[in-house]
Amino acid sequence: MWAALEQVGRDARTGGYRRFAWTHEDAHLREWFAGECAARGQDVVEDRAGNQWAWWGDPDVVRADGTSGGVAVGSHLDSVPDGGAFDGPLGVVSALAAIDGLRAAGLTPAVPVAVVSFVDEEGARFGIACAGSRVLTGALPAERALGLRDGDGLTMAEALQVLGRDPTALGRDDETLRRVTTFVELHVEQGRALAHLDPATSAVAVGSDIWPHGRWRIDVPGTANHAGTTRLEDRRDAMLGYAEAVLAAREVATARGCVATMGKIRVEPNGVNAIASHVTGWLDARGADEGAVRAAVVDLAAFAQARGATLTEESWTGATRFAPDLVRRLADTLGPSTPVLGTGAGHDAGILSAHGIPSAMLFVRNPTGVSHSPQEHAERADCHAGVAALTRVLADLTEAS
Amino acid sequence: MWAALEQVGRDARTGGYRRFAWTHEDAHLREWFAGECAARGQDVVEDRAGNQWAWWGDPDVVRADGTSGGVAVGSHLDSVPDGGAFDGPLGVVSALAAIDGLRAAGLTPAVPVAVVSFVDEEGARFGIACAGSRVLTGALPAERALGLRDGDGLTMAEALQVLGRDPTALGRDDETLRRVTTFVELHVEQGRALAHLDPATSAVAVGSDIWPHGRWRIDVPGTANHAGTTRLEDRRDAMLGYAEAVLAAREVATARGCVATMGKIRVEPNGVNAIASHVTGWLDARGADEGAVRAAVVDLAAFAQARGATLTEESWTGATRFAPDLVRRLADTLGPSTPVLGTGAGHDAGILSAHGIPSAMLFVRNPTGVSHSPQEHAERADCHAGVAALTRVLADLTEAS
Repeated sequence: MWAALEQVGRDARTGGYRRFAWTHEDAHLREWFAGECAARGQDVVEDRAGNQWAWWGDPDVVRADGTSGGVAVGSHLDSVPDGGAFDGPLGVVSALAAIDGLRAAGLTPAVPVAVVSFVDEEGARFGIACAGSRVLTGALPAERALGLRDGDGLTMAEALQVLGRDPTALGRDDETLRRVTTFVELHVEQGRALAHLDPATSAVAVGSDIWPHGRWRIDVPGTANHAGTTRLEDRRDAMLGYAEAVLAAREVATARGCVATMGKIRVEPNGVNAIASHVTGWLDARGADEGAVRAAVVDLAAFAQARGATLTEESWTGATRFAPDLVRRLADTLGPSTPVLGTGAGHDAGILSAHGIPSAMLFVRNPTGVSHSPQEHAERADCHAGVAALTRVLADLTEAS
Repeated sequence: MWAALEQVGRDARTGGYRRFAWTHEDAHLREWFAGECAARGQDVVEDRAGNQWAWWGDPDVVRADGTSGGVAVGSHLDSVPDGGAFDGPLGVVSALAAIDGLRAAGLTPAVPVAVVSFVDEEGARFGIACAGSRVLTGALPAERALGLRDGDGLTMAEALQVLGRDPTALGRDDETLRRVTTFVELHVEQGRALAHLDPATSAVAVGSDIWPHGRWRIDVPGTANHAGTTRLEDRRDAMLGYAEAVLAAREVATARGCVATMGKIRVEPNGVNAIASHVTGWLDARGADEGAVRAAVVDLAAFAQARGATLTEESWTGATRFAPDLVRRLADTLGPSTPVLGTGAGHDAGILSAHGIPSAMLFVRNPTGVSHSPQEHAERADCHAGVAALTRVLADLTEAS
């Protein structure tokens, strides 16, 4: 499966991936997913948000105990700009491989099983992460999603129309949500917590929670002027204020024990011989402790305000604790030495969990911790350990026999 | 004339101008210029660099004293991104008005007079300022100019072809250069030197020299990684190095008594949740004293190198002293109280001067000093004083009677 995905949306120069939602690359990946599912006798059904579900067994059948629905496993196939090969696809490929694992062992689940591929997890094109699961659960209203614009000014509604899709169909989908009793997402780890532990027992961890995280926009005003003829003392240079804010963000994060990143910038007019008249920067801040993250942002807002700049919250997601019973069950299934970890990255499992669907994650060791980069890596043996773990978890949760 | 120009290439939101070389806006301005010249009985001839010349009298006729050629006045019509109304057009409009002034006074020049409009003075599209005069004089070889790319990746050669022009015609043009015995460029001042002087005598100044100036590229390497899961101590964040360089550039410029600007940036991958893997910044540095500018750049290069970043020179122009005899003659013509000023901005007059054509400038007072901005301004009375001064200078230089 891995070989078929390797070249889709790959930048020849960097080796990184550019797989953005509702593009031709994305359509290619959706086709690939549908084909893999069909080969396993599982037809793909799209929900109203565009996520792809392939059920083994009918999740609408009511069982003797009055329950219906089943267990879903999967992740996403889209990427950040210049992303790595594992973030997303590893979870989808491992889910398909776990299905194969159950079948190879001659096991049949007692409840239906779905493999799911969420759309637009990274939010690389329209700016909102986990857009597929957010629209599905209603956390992101359809009308807001459809109005989001990409870097070329195209709205999501227009992007859907380009692909011949009907934007008015987009929206929350309770019928799909009702079918999912449990969701488990396998993902490559995006830090080095596992790499620092005992190599023999730490190829796979159970995810316990997602850190609180948010995005803020920083607007630094300036006055456009000529770079050659304006005395330093007559300038109001927005780039200077921005540079101070970048260094301040690192300082307050260090002081408060969280992480802060300023990775995106837009400059007007962005000319070599013109003093910047306006700089817009974006702050990403996260941490294990919600109070610490909030305090760091308040510190930075005060710093910015003292310099005539402003900080505006664009998104905020509080801490997500995965269902404790489920986390314990996964850890028990995988054995007493299995590490249990929180993570600073947002995931669709967090969105489904916040919606009330018992969800949890499995993390596969990342030797360098590098992610969102062409250098992202996981060892083949660790990926196989991930598939084996997901297969055992799936057999347990579905009482396969 | 001003009213016809007012809306061409104007951004409705900012009120600033976007008049870039070899665009449709630029073509519109070229047409306008040709029409104004034709209305004065002066046909426009394009040189091999695309600059437009409209002669009154035949510059190729050899006079009784064995000389030929004549005096050129003019400036440029293109703009920086979001530029002001005066930078460039004031010099072209004033040149046409000075011709009208001579005629209204019943004066006939003893030598030919040209009005010139230089193409691509700002270098806003292809990155090299004064590209029209540089190609004309050979300072910029045609093959290099044709290979320059705009922000969309289009080369200048391709841009010319889009307009139905033949790129192979571009090049140095000695025939045109031979015709110009003297060049005077009127320009709005881009600082506040005149605004600080006696209001009664300082509407117009004579330009004596152009400061040495250059552009450098700063490359700051980093490692792409996830903004949520990478510990601060594990990061190599290119944006931090860039921010330090911005503040350092201001510091070294202050210490060395020159000006330094970092107004343009390019970030990879420029994502909110991705640590910057590479930041490219540009430094513009200038000053009255060449040694001071050079020393500031050496300081910054050392600062950058200590952090793993590099500084690369993209262009350098030494100090340009306008022909002292010509500067003195202009000041004498305009009266003993006329201010004589140097400037930090590059101009086509500097390129022609460096090529050996006696050149000088007139500056019209700018009350705020703001330039390269929609707020750029000059009072109507000062603009009229500029036209009057240029008319007197032209009458003197051409021994009109």
